[in-house]
Amino acid sequence: MAETRPPDASRRSERSRRAIYDAALALVGEAGYTRTTIEGIAARAGVGKQTIYRWWPSKAAVLLDAFLDRAEQAAQGEPDLPDTGDLEADLKLVLRATVDELNSPVYDAPARALAAESVSDPALAAQFVERLLEPSLQMYVRRLDAARAAGHVRAGIDPRIALELLVGPLAHRWLLRTLPLTHEYADKVVEYALYGLAPRD
Amino acid sequence: MAETRPPDASRRSERSRRAIYDAALALVGEAGYTRTTIEGIAARAGVGKQTIYRWWPSKAAVLLDAFLDRAEQAAQGEPDLPDTGDLEADLKLVLRATVDELNSPVYDAPARALAAESVSDPALAAQFVERLLEPSLQMYVRRLDAARAAGHVRAGIDPRIALELLVGPLAHRWLLRTLPLTHEYADKVVEYALYGLAPRD
Repeated sequence: MAETRPPDASRRSERSRRAIYDAALALVGEAGYTRTTIEGIAARAGVGKQTIYRWWPSKAAVLLDAFLDRAEQAAQGEPDLPDTGDLEADLKLVLRATVDELNSPVYDAPARALAAESVSDPALAAQFVERLLEPSLQMYVRRLDAARAAGHVRAGIDPRIALELLVGPLAHRWLLRTLPLTHEYADKVVEYALYGLAPRD
Repeated sequence: MAETRPPDASRRSERSRRAIYDAALALVGEAGYTRTTIEGIAARAGVGKQTIYRWWPSKAAVLLDAFLDRAEQAAQGEPDLPDTGDLEADLKLVLRATVDELNSPVYDAPARALAAESVSDPALAAQFVERLLEPSLQMYVRRLDAARAAGHVRAGIDPRIALELLVGPLAHRWLLRTLPLTHEYADKVVEYALYGLAPRD
């Protein structure tokens, strides 16, 4: 679709959009999801609340787009997991980084809010999975496919299931707050998933 | 502590307690968690709302106790995972039953409500983990310990971490609604967790 708005308006709305994302993430972090309102986000972003209502149907939708925007910026030019040829080392690096992100106070409140809403709202969950979660899981699929081609993953392993043995345990600890998320834990999850619990003989 | 209430009063309050649990689970299933109120639970259970307020601080607390009560009834006399000596078969049985429970409409709405509240409320999460989740995870610890003693689990494996490779993937699919939960999926998770993703040679 051709961009028909003049460049100035486009730049202006891009600035507003970013300001809205920053405001939403910050407010949820400071005040909690329940106490965050569209009005509050608008005031902090310096835009009219009609601007937000025009672009998004709910505060959960704003939050989802804020995360998508962050994920796109973080992946800038590098939309894949590292591949040094050492699957174990690469996965440990990625899962340790995931632990750091999940433990970061800036990330925790808005990410939990989005996850909690998705747990109880199927429509939001569909958006969350399709636009944010599944694309990030597909990075694991590609890395595991490459490992299989290199002989580092058993033939017959379905990478879309295999990746859940890596991300599932971390998500379980984080979402349900069972035990602390540490680098040591991330390492063990990678080791157990790669080599299994049963003896090798 | 000695039971000082006369037997009749005790039986009556036991009946009320059960009626409140049934009402809470049914209402959340029918109307959703947000639209379920203490008043609604009281009306359906045929008790005064003060009875509920006297015993529980919130509707989430009622729901948690309702789940605990159900879990205690389900475990009646059998508070452990099956142990036929075949770890793979036993775990497949347990994970398939978990899939069935997570897919059951009666269970889904109240369990999701409790999980979603726990994701965003650390105080409720602490109760949820301590009283409901961790005791059920300890059943896996005991089964994996027995398997280790029998030589079916590698020496050096920490069973409290190992179990998360089994329950984490299922929880991830269920909570975040990524893909369907099926028996075939449960079987693969058990196989991958036991034998690992890396080739055995």
